[in-house]
Amino acid sequence: MRLRNWLFHNFREVSRIFGFEEVDFPVLESEALFVRKAGEEIRDQLYCFEDRGNRRVALRPELTPSLARLVIQKGKSVSLPLKWFAVGQCWRYERMTRGRRREHYQWNMDIIGVPEVTAEAELISSIVTFFKKIGITASDVGFKISSRKVLQEVLGSYSVPENSFGKVCVIIDKLEKIPVDEIKKELKLVGMSEVAIEELLQVLSIKSLEKLEEVLGGGGEAISDLKRLFFLAEKFGYSDWIQFDASIVRGLAYYTGIVFEGFDREGKLRAICGGGRYDKLLSTFGGDDIPACGFGFGDAVIVELLKERGLLPELSQQVENIVCALDQDLQGAAASVATKLREKGQTVDLVLEGKPLKWVFKRAARINAQRLILVGSSEWQKGMVSVKILSSGEQYEVEVGKLE
Amino acid sequence: MRLRNWLFHNFREVSRIFGFEEVDFPVLESEALFVRKAGEEIRDQLYCFEDRGNRRVALRPELTPSLARLVIQKGKSVSLPLKWFAVGQCWRYERMTRGRRREHYQWNMDIIGVPEVTAEAELISSIVTFFKKIGITASDVGFKISSRKVLQEVLGSYSVPENSFGKVCVIIDKLEKIPVDEIKKELKLVGMSEVAIEELLQVLSIKSLEKLEEVLGGGGEAISDLKRLFFLAEKFGYSDWIQFDASIVRGLAYYTGIVFEGFDREGKLRAICGGGRYDKLLSTFGGDDIPACGFGFGDAVIVELLKERGLLPELSQQVENIVCALDQDLQGAAASVATKLREKGQTVDLVLEGKPLKWVFKRAARINAQRLILVGSSEWQKGMVSVKILSSGEQYEVEVGKLE
Repeated sequence: MRLRNWLFHNFREVSRIFGFEEVDFPVLESEALFVRKAGEEIRDQLYCFEDRGNRRVALRPELTPSLARLVIQKGKSVSLPLKWFAVGQCWRYERMTRGRRREHYQWNMDIIGVPEVTAEAELISSIVTFFKKIGITASDVGFKISSRKVLQEVLGSYSVPENSFGKVCVIIDKLEKIPVDEIKKELKLVGMSEVAIEELLQVLSIKSLEKLEEVLGGGGEAISDLKRLFFLAEKFGYSDWIQFDASIVRGLAYYTGIVFEGFDREGKLRAICGGGRYDKLLSTFGGDDIPACGFGFGDAVIVELLKERGLLPELSQQVENIVCALDQDLQGAAASVATKLREKGQTVDLVLEGKPLKWVFKRAARINAQRLILVGSSEWQKGMVSVKILSSGEQYEVEVGKLE
Repeated sequence: MRLRNWLFHNFREVSRIFGFEEVDFPVLESEALFVRKAGEEIRDQLYCFEDRGNRRVALRPELTPSLARLVIQKGKSVSLPLKWFAVGQCWRYERMTRGRRREHYQWNMDIIGVPEVTAEAELISSIVTFFKKIGITASDVGFKISSRKVLQEVLGSYSVPENSFGKVCVIIDKLEKIPVDEIKKELKLVGMSEVAIEELLQVLSIKSLEKLEEVLGGGGEAISDLKRLFFLAEKFGYSDWIQFDASIVRGLAYYTGIVFEGFDREGKLRAICGGGRYDKLLSTFGGDDIPACGFGFGDAVIVELLKERGLLPELSQQVENIVCALDQDLQGAAASVATKLREKGQTVDLVLEGKPLKWVFKRAARINAQRLILVGSSEWQKGMVSVKILSSGEQYEVEVGKLE
């Protein structure tokens, strides 16, 4: 819990520094919110039920659909752009593996209402800021960046129907996980010709923007968006964190433009985070489309990475005072001392039972107490208590009213 | 969300001041964890499902059973007493009313391993500290306090079987909600004689400890626990917040000793919080019993109370800087200015699109920005930006490197 709080505190601090406002959504949602037909992993692993009123419901697997619904609901009552973040629990119905649990938390940041690539650049900047804050450098982690428009241009030139686009992306996202022959088979099922598939796989192997420009030509949005993003990255100051990689498409159906993924450079772990532009999501829920982009950053893989790098922080319990009555009759006196200190904002662990001093010292050590305050009969009659500074062993008596 | 964060921050701060450690539990639990046979409201309103693997599961209605299980699991690996708090989401399947929603949060503090009433006194002290922190006084709110041992002594003298005890408590808890004849009927169904019922209702109407002592006699634990608690309350400094009220039993089956309930003195709202001692809960989950007590404090009624009293805090968005490029070519420059400020820990809302100045000023006002930093072409060529302090209208140019 201390680790979780530390992590979430950093999520929140970075979001705050970037001027984002916190939002949250229901944990239990209508299943319909997450039903998309592109064959996504997230849909297959939906933790869904029928409730007592025979409604199909699901524990949210992600936050973005709820966010989209909220944006539609708010309609004209909010001024764009919205810059929202959330740290929310999400669920998947799946076997557990390293860095992948049934229940996990996700930090999301989303910018709603900005069509320019500056928005994606800002989002990546915030993740970089987070990494730096927790001690992770550009030699530990990088971002692979591409654009769904790359695929769109390739598919367009082979007349692949537009409504297959989401499906094709979801299939391609599995490129590193399942054999390429399987991928080809699935792409054929979606109606792609063999020539188109070969061309697509060719393009997906490209690792430089120059090469991509040679293949696609210079006039398209894919190239201009990506160039703009790399230009902005330099100005934001994180060029050394990012690289173009056409194979990145992300596994969610709704992305439409820039997509990115944070990865550990040692290649041992799953993606650390991922995001992209989703300009057409709102209309799938019956709203008017608003340009938007965002990312999700889980709480599991990052902890694995911190462990790998020896960067997990030391987080022990911190208590300023432990207050103890030396005999049962002085419990009330000890309680009044505790209250006085707490009123001054001091943290106090009050010993609630009669215990031997040895026990009290052991407890003080375990909770890292700085001072031990003993309420003993003879001192108390003089309005005094005895204070022991536990780090130095220094000991003195002080008037109760003068305890600071 | 700002209100929620403010509230939770105060929950956490008070818990920290009292030396408690934060814990959390799964949101989705096995249904069996919450199935008790005492006819509790919490059980009737269980938000339960069958999952994809045909397991009976439930969204947790409360945190205490999960806590009990964790204590059993930890066994001898933890040193008692444990002082734990949690701020967790809970669910009920019920129609929504004022201060009662299907989804709500509960602040819980629990002390595990202390048989003495000092533990209950400490818990109430922490709630009082919380009230004071958010501006609520003893004239707004009070605590009604009793002990389940009062009932136990009455029922014992009429040979009511011990396994009916939980049921009797749950029935009595409805005393203010349903007609007394209904209560009597239900008590008869549990096997109580008419004489016992009359005596019980008599005792429940007692509002002073002196009167209770007259009726029960002075030798029992009920009286001695309650006297000790009122003595300690004085030492902790919250005597004016509490009163004895025998009608308080709380609606959860597992309480065994002191029970208490926070109420608004105007009598408009439901209970604000409630808790008590539950020394026998662990054995119902197959563990060895450990003396324990705790409370639950919801996030709904307290907000109603704050509204009633005009104590809701003003919580607007706070951003230190809004940074804006004066033309599209300077977006990158604005990004670098934003990065510099953020590296210094400043909060920055970066304008991500080309927008007219009028729009920028409107946004600055909406997000309560303190400074507007404009990146214009002629200043930028000199390495300068223009700064406008929005409260005073003061405006000046400054070297980018000297921005603080």
